[in-house]
Amino acid sequence: MIKVGIINVTGYGGAELARLLYNHKSVEIVEVTGRSMAGKSLREVFPHLYDIDIDIKESISQKCDVIFSALPHAASAEQIKNFVDKDVKILDLSADFRLNNLNEYRRWYDTEHPMPEYLDDFTYGLTEIYRDEIKNSNYIANPGCFPTSILLALIPALKSKLINPPLVIDSKTGVSGAGRKLSLNTHFSEINENVKAYSVFGHRHLSEISQESNLIDDRFENKITFLAHLVPMTRGILTTIYADYNHDLIKNSDQLIYIYQDFYKDSPFIKIVEEPPSTKNTLGSNYCHIFPYIEPNSDKLILLSCIDNLVKGTAGQAVQNMNLMYGLEETEGILDLALYP
Amino acid sequence: MIKVGIINVTGYGGAELARLLYNHKSVEIVEVTGRSMAGKSLREVFPHLYDIDIDIKESISQKCDVIFSALPHAASAEQIKNFVDKDVKILDLSADFRLNNLNEYRRWYDTEHPMPEYLDDFTYGLTEIYRDEIKNSNYIANPGCFPTSILLALIPALKSKLINPPLVIDSKTGVSGAGRKLSLNTHFSEINENVKAYSVFGHRHLSEISQESNLIDDRFENKITFLAHLVPMTRGILTTIYADYNHDLIKNSDQLIYIYQDFYKDSPFIKIVEEPPSTKNTLGSNYCHIFPYIEPNSDKLILLSCIDNLVKGTAGQAVQNMNLMYGLEETEGILDLALYP
Amino acid sequence: MIKVGIINVTGYGGAELARLLYNHKSVEIVEVTGRSMAGKSLREVFPHLYDIDIDIKESISQKCDVIFSALPHAASAEQIKNFVDKDVKILDLSADFRLNNLNEYRRWYDTEHPMPEYLDDFTYGLTEIYRDEIKNSNYIANPGCFPTSILLALIPALKSKLINPPLVIDSKTGVSGAGRKLSLNTHFSEINENVKAYSVFGHRHLSEISQESNLIDDRFENKITFLAHLVPMTRGILTTIYADYNHDLIKNSDQLIYIYQDFYKDSPFIKIVEEPPSTKNTLGSNYCHIFPYIEPNSDKLILLSCIDNLVKGTAGQAVQNMNLMYGLEETEGILDLALYP
Amino acid sequence: MIKVGIINVTGYGGAELARLLYNHKSVEIVEVTGRSMAGKSLREVFPHLYDIDIDIKESISQKCDVIFSALPHAASAEQIKNFVDKDVKILDLSADFRLNNLNEYRRWYDTEHPMPEYLDDFTYGLTEIYRDEIKNSNYIANPGCFPTSILLALIPALKSKLINPPLVIDSKTGVSGAGRKLSLNTHFSEINENVKAYSVFGHRHLSEISQESNLIDDRFENKITFLAHLVPMTRGILTTIYADYNHDLIKNSDQLIYIYQDFYKDSPFIKIVEEPPSTKNTLGSNYCHIFPYIEPNSDKLILLSCIDNLVKGTAGQAVQNMNLMYGLEETEGILDLALYP
Repeated sequence: MIKVGIINVTGYGGAELARLLYNHKSVEIVEVTGRSMAGKSLREVFPHLYDIDIDIKESISQKCDVIFSALPHAASAEQIKNFVDKDVKILDLSADFRLNNLNEYRRWYDTEHPMPEYLDDFTYGLTEIYRDEIKNSNYIANPGCFPTSILLALIPALKSKLINPPLVIDSKTGVSGAGRKLSLNTHFSEINENVKAYSVFGHRHLSEISQESNLIDDRFENKITFLAHLVPMTRGILTTIYADYNHDLIKNSDQLIYIYQDFYKDSPFIKIVEEPPSTKNTLGSNYCHIFPYIEPNSDKLILLSCIDNLVKGTAGQAVQNMNLMYGLEETEGILDLALYP
Repeated sequence: MIKVGIINVTGYGGAELARLLYNHKSVEIVEVTGRSMAGKSLREVFPHLYDIDIDIKESISQKCDVIFSALPHAASAEQIKNFVDKDVKILDLSADFRLNNLNEYRRWYDTEHPMPEYLDDFTYGLTEIYRDEIKNSNYIANPGCFPTSILLALIPALKSKLINPPLVIDSKTGVSGAGRKLSLNTHFSEINENVKAYSVFGHRHLSEISQESNLIDDRFENKITFLAHLVPMTRGILTTIYADYNHDLIKNSDQLIYIYQDFYKDSPFIKIVEEPPSTKNTLGSNYCHIFPYIEPNSDKLILLSCIDNLVKGTAGQAVQNMNLMYGLEETEGILDLALYP
Repeated sequence: MIKVGIINVTGYGGAELARLLYNHKSVEIVEVTGRSMAGKSLREVFPHLYDIDIDIKESISQKCDVIFSALPHAASAEQIKNFVDKDVKILDLSADFRLNNLNEYRRWYDTEHPMPEYLDDFTYGLTEIYRDEIKNSNYIANPGCFPTSILLALIPALKSKLINPPLVIDSKTGVSGAGRKLSLNTHFSEINENVKAYSVFGHRHLSEISQESNLIDDRFENKITFLAHLVPMTRGILTTIYADYNHDLIKNSDQLIYIYQDFYKDSPFIKIVEEPPSTKNTLGSNYCHIFPYIEPNSDKLILLSCIDNLVKGTAGQAVQNMNLMYGLEETEGILDLALYP
Repeated sequence: MIKVGIINVTGYGGAELARLLYNHKSVEIVEVTGRSMAGKSLREVFPHLYDIDIDIKESISQKCDVIFSALPHAASAEQIKNFVDKDVKILDLSADFRLNNLNEYRRWYDTEHPMPEYLDDFTYGLTEIYRDEIKNSNYIANPGCFPTSILLALIPALKSKLINPPLVIDSKTGVSGAGRKLSLNTHFSEINENVKAYSVFGHRHLSEISQESNLIDDRFENKITFLAHLVPMTRGILTTIYADYNHDLIKNSDQLIYIYQDFYKDSPFIKIVEEPPSTKNTLGSNYCHIFPYIEPNSDKLILLSCIDNLVKGTAGQAVQNMNLMYGLEETEGILDLALYP
């Protein structure tokens, strides 16, 4: 049994890790932390985790084989400092080790990086794209929820040079992406029956999206418009990507679907679907549904994708990465089908 | 592997059975039916079940070991007729075999019973109460969702004679309980941001609640007021039960909690919780949370309980019963923790 | 034009007052306060009030004819101190002047009353019941939202001695009743797709409900069980009241409806409806819908009522009271029909 | 008093007309129709309209000065046939008279136009753009809800040649836009906690958007990508428009805001706001909020707008047009501020 520790189990990402790992047959949760709730039992804070009989500690003290950090950026690296260069695998769910470029980190996260010298040691954990690197890595930077929904849809087109800049990416997210921290922007009466764009002058996740896109095709530098919208639901991200396409390579939607199916033929969690996807079709699951097509009236290539932001967008992808790091079946513990309706 | 057939997989109860049984390690889904969708693949109708590679048929033709019927009442018994007295176990999710009394069936369901001679062959599948009978039964009448949420909270008090008539039972349900059939009462714009009582002159489930209560304590005959309310959420039932209690037996809430904990000490899905339960704490899971207490201002005994109406209230309890019928671990395939938030 | 000041316009009650008073043809909003937002324009804080061109101040300084206080309890009385015994009418939306008994205030609100000597000067502003007293009063204690929904349904039965103790009152409220203050209990991801009971050991509004009931029929002292439930919607309260009734006075539902219609025949905002009411039927309006009936299976008298908690339950009833205080048409400025769907 | 008739009051558009017109001081509702509900009183069907004491008829028989048709396309023109060339003003809320080109009508609505010879007699009722034409017209084709939200945001930029093709328009709508007709796409359990794109190969409203855009700048022909998304709320449309802009004319967001404020300086319902707008800020009101800005990372011009689809997007704009046709104050009867929260 792999001994697992979860740092900051009291946020939504951490709680979701506990939910998934509890039923993972190769894993034992040996320690969970959550500063403000230290001393309480996990079930007091989260009655839905009643069967996980464990107390919340202030910090990880015991010997864990692998540590998941679900802290916010900066705070996460500060904690991770204590565990590097020891015989512990680390999966960081924060943004701290996602960006290769320190200036970009400083610009978007408005703070100095707490452990810049370790940036290169972390692999960007977009599982389906970096599967081999992840298998051989001890430290994983788990991608953001928006970048996961966007890059999984975008990368097959980028790698095959099917599309040309510029890109418009319009994402719609449920509210749990904003976490458990209180804010007027997540206050029920303000958000229910409401839709709005936010971070309109630049969402932090643009840095990840650009980094990964430019690595494949540098014509997209500064050519990606990304706008996030908050919709009144708890979980789920729907992403709509609008692009011009290369008419020499693509003649119709069928061809496009074929390319996508082929690209993901060995990826059990990615489904190239034949109808526009609904976020509800991936609720609570680690699946990503993608619908690529040619819009006939304006002759644009449109990519629609959906995920559950807390599973494939956060905790589920982290478990998937852990499975790879340990040579387990990629799907172990995260094969639950979506909850519908 | 137990070969399973699902009749009417295209409703919410049937789809939920497919979701749960797909990941049950002792089960293989060999056949699913759904008349209006016959000929289509399951994933066309339900993309969230993408990984279940099976076509929907018009009727069960193959050899199944066990059949779940998720048809509406009357239609269910009509289909079940074809499978009785053969070597097939049957779990009926409809109301057809729940009531012992044909007159009550006729009164509440306003139709003649299609197979009255089989009423006695079916065991009422309220798992935690009739566990032994279920283990020895081939035919199960799975309880209704409201009766499940109500009786699990009520029966410990009834059996210990803690409470006296009359009872007021006020339940609040999500909309999926009304099924997938279209109606103005389940039309999004009518139901969203809305709460109302319905079936105010008598909800069908009262017959089940009364039958089971009277079996234990016949002083409750015609002394139970049950009113169902529709709230704007998809899944979940919260039940509030108000009763007078026997002051000789109960002095305080702690004592009450102890009695409940003891009653359910061997029931892994029932949790006697220490805070008023939220339906979200059981979302997507087979758990039932119960909070019994004494309201100090009016000195009433109040029982609060919650379940997911489609899991513990329908498909999950049916799988739990199937596990018992086959001598499997009661929890097999249905141990998923709730999806929160 | 009546010159109006609103203290604490930045909460939901205050903002709703501004919305309603802006289109009231006999009123001019001359001053609004909101400490944390002082210095900002009202439209910066509430873009939906864009057309009200006024700045938020720290305190009321100008000459107003009437002041509405939308502060929380205790804070409200502290402010109101500055305006009593001047030529200003006062409508207090807080709980400070609702209870006649100081001990009850201390017990439920857990603080010393800031102006006990003025308790008698305030009239309990349940408009339809205390219309004449309100007309002759300068100071109004506007009722709580739950008491409004409950007492309007209950009082006709109490006054006609139709019902006997005990009473069970089960209310379901939207989240805006909890105000704009941040809390995990109003955090979108926690509340959406969720129902729960709260303040289960005693909700403050029980004190108001009991006081007013006992004034009419003291047999109800300590015989009222009131439990509030939070449902995932923004506005609206549905109340369900369960009672035993006097069979000498009531033979059937029709008779009951007649008594209610007669009781409210001169009350333009109260509708005795012929179907169980939906909260959505009163959304955004000052109406209260009541459905009284006899439940035939258990022979109980059930009263269903609904209101918009922020209009009839708060700001709308306050405006209705102001109209009476000034001899205006009772309905002026608050005749908007409900927003449906 | 203007005598008004409403054809098909039983849909959401018709019911909203009744709600708004009831409190319009220059109007009397003299007749309402709704075939399936003919014979019932309006309050039986819509308890929220309790105070409108009128019965639903099968057809308009009485002398009305103005008729609003809230029927679906084709059915609307069939009814309107009976009223043209009489002394009656007509406001059609359907799509029948919006498109100037019969082929476009046939292509998008897949039917022959019932009264093609009258196309030219109807004025496209986008109030703020065609105010003068509307004043002098007897027949109005009320715009679609998406085109209203889109064109009000787009036209100032088009008229000033600020933007260049192509355009990407991503709209998010509440469910009431799909009307009261039952469908799995508006079934609560399917839509709640869900977001999806629909009509992805071409939404009918594209024809209107293209027609009006091309009239101003024909470079946009076939250069507009419009994709509609369904979000889990009842009312509201948020539109996000992405465009390249003319750097000679626009240097920054402030300049853009100035141009928009100037364009709409005489339009009381259009607010150029300084924060990204929320649909909730226009809920239940006839206002449209627009936020134009330059996205700095990709140097795109983005237009965000929101309306209530049933008010400014349907019934409210129709009343606004009626006001102009009769020389009344443009805002009469529709000045209600939005319902928030």
